[in-house]
Amino acid sequence: MMKLYWSPRSRSFTTLWLMEETGQPYERVLIDISTGAQKAPEFLAINPMGKVPALTDGDIATAEAAAICAYVTERFPDAKLAPPLGDARRAKYLQWLFFGPSCIEPALIQIFTKLEVPSSTAAWGNATQVFDVLDKALEKGPWILGNDFSAADIVIGSGLNFAIRQFKMVPPRPAFDRYIDRCMARPAFQRAETIAAG
Amino acid sequence: MMKLYWSPRSRSFTTLWLMEETGQPYERVLIDISTGAQKAPEFLAINPMGKVPALTDGDIATAEAAAICAYVTERFPDAKLAPPLGDARRAKYLQWLFFGPSCIEPALIQIFTKLEVPSSTAAWGNATQVFDVLDKALEKGPWILGNDFSAADIVIGSGLNFAIRQFKMVPPRPAFDRYIDRCMARPAFQRAETIAAG
Ligand SMILES: N[C@@H](CCC(=O)N[C@@H](CS)C(=O)NCC(=O)O)C(=O)O
Ligand SMILES: N[C@@H](CCC(=O)N[C@@H](CS)C(=O)NCC(=O)O)C(=O)O
Repeated sequence: MMKLYWSPRSRSFTTLWLMEETGQPYERVLIDISTGAQKAPEFLAINPMGKVPALTDGDIATAEAAAICAYVTERFPDAKLAPPLGDARRAKYLQWLFFGPSCIEPALIQIFTKLEVPSSTAAWGNATQVFDVLDKALEKGPWILGNDFSAADIVIGSGLNFAIRQFKMVPPRPAFDRYIDRCMARPAFQRAETIAAG
Repeated sequence: MMKLYWSPRSRSFTTLWLMEETGQPYERVLIDISTGAQKAPEFLAINPMGKVPALTDGDIATAEAAAICAYVTERFPDAKLAPPLGDARRAKYLQWLFFGPSCIEPALIQIFTKLEVPSSTAAWGNATQVFDVLDKALEKGPWILGNDFSAADIVIGSGLNFAIRQFKMVPPRPAFDRYIDRCMARPAFQRAETIAAG
């Protein structure tokens, strides 16, 4: 059984939502980051970055929230959390899966720290551009790939929920509101929220 | 035939190296970012971020260097640039593929801008931690997954070459030097370098 290493109110939420969407049993291992448990040697052996989330699958360990999403969708193809290999939607699926760490994460850091960096140099351009691009991509919906929900929605939906609803770092927009509401209506999201509250 | 949209001396290098490793024919489409070509409507239709690299595969478009790596390895399994689905090394392969945009990219932005942000909040911890973790991961080698070269090396190797050799933003370390030398010894790397020089 997979083990998910997590901490309340953290980026673990993405992977809690993911695991709840799979419908598969998994074990949750609490690594309370408020106590420094993420820097204990036993956990560093699992994720040398000393951060949650991390996942083990037998004696295989992995980390990085979006990478865990990519891995778990492969391991549980029946959960249909990703277009199957060879499907034309794989290209956009992968693009959005990487868009979380590549663009949404640094855009939020930029807002949080008021970082100034030329948008032609910054891998994410600038925060406004990131949210404009997402707005356009979510215009049609219901999901980022169109009709089918996927793990890309788990990455993008967690990022938008965090930025807009939880931390109010980014002003709401109609397409974002509809999308976040749709994410929050999913039973797996709600179960993850209850767990993540600690 | 796939089309790779690229510009000299840019993050396109990663994907030039990738395409050269596949051994497959592909078309290069120059989007000269020094002329603003990346903001033309025809290119924004391919990558709404207005950035290179981007890739089209028939009428499918994708972007984000590491996502292009993930996609192309799936499309050309015979090039053996990724462990096959179900292989135990998939978890680490995906982790390192995401480590580029999630950790190496922001670490370099942090060095470049002297950004101060608490390491428990920052998705990459801090720059020192990122390079310490990579140093450890590359200790054994020859590649990041061990004996077999993969697209994760294209992402990590491009990042380290950029940070250490090209821009001297990060001090060299023996494990990095050996690894970068190994990357640079690959004929595909050398072809990509010639192309990327413009
Ligand atoms: N790049 C990582 C970021 C993970 C991360 O930053 N986790 C934070 C909690 S939100 C953490 O564990 N912080 C504790 C620490 O660094 O000491 C991912 O996407 O999974
Ligand atoms: N997150 C993107 C970053 C791409 C990127 O920032 N490209 C730069 C060149 S290195 C660019 O196109 N800059 C031109 C611009 O933004 O106008 C990726 O990983 O592919």
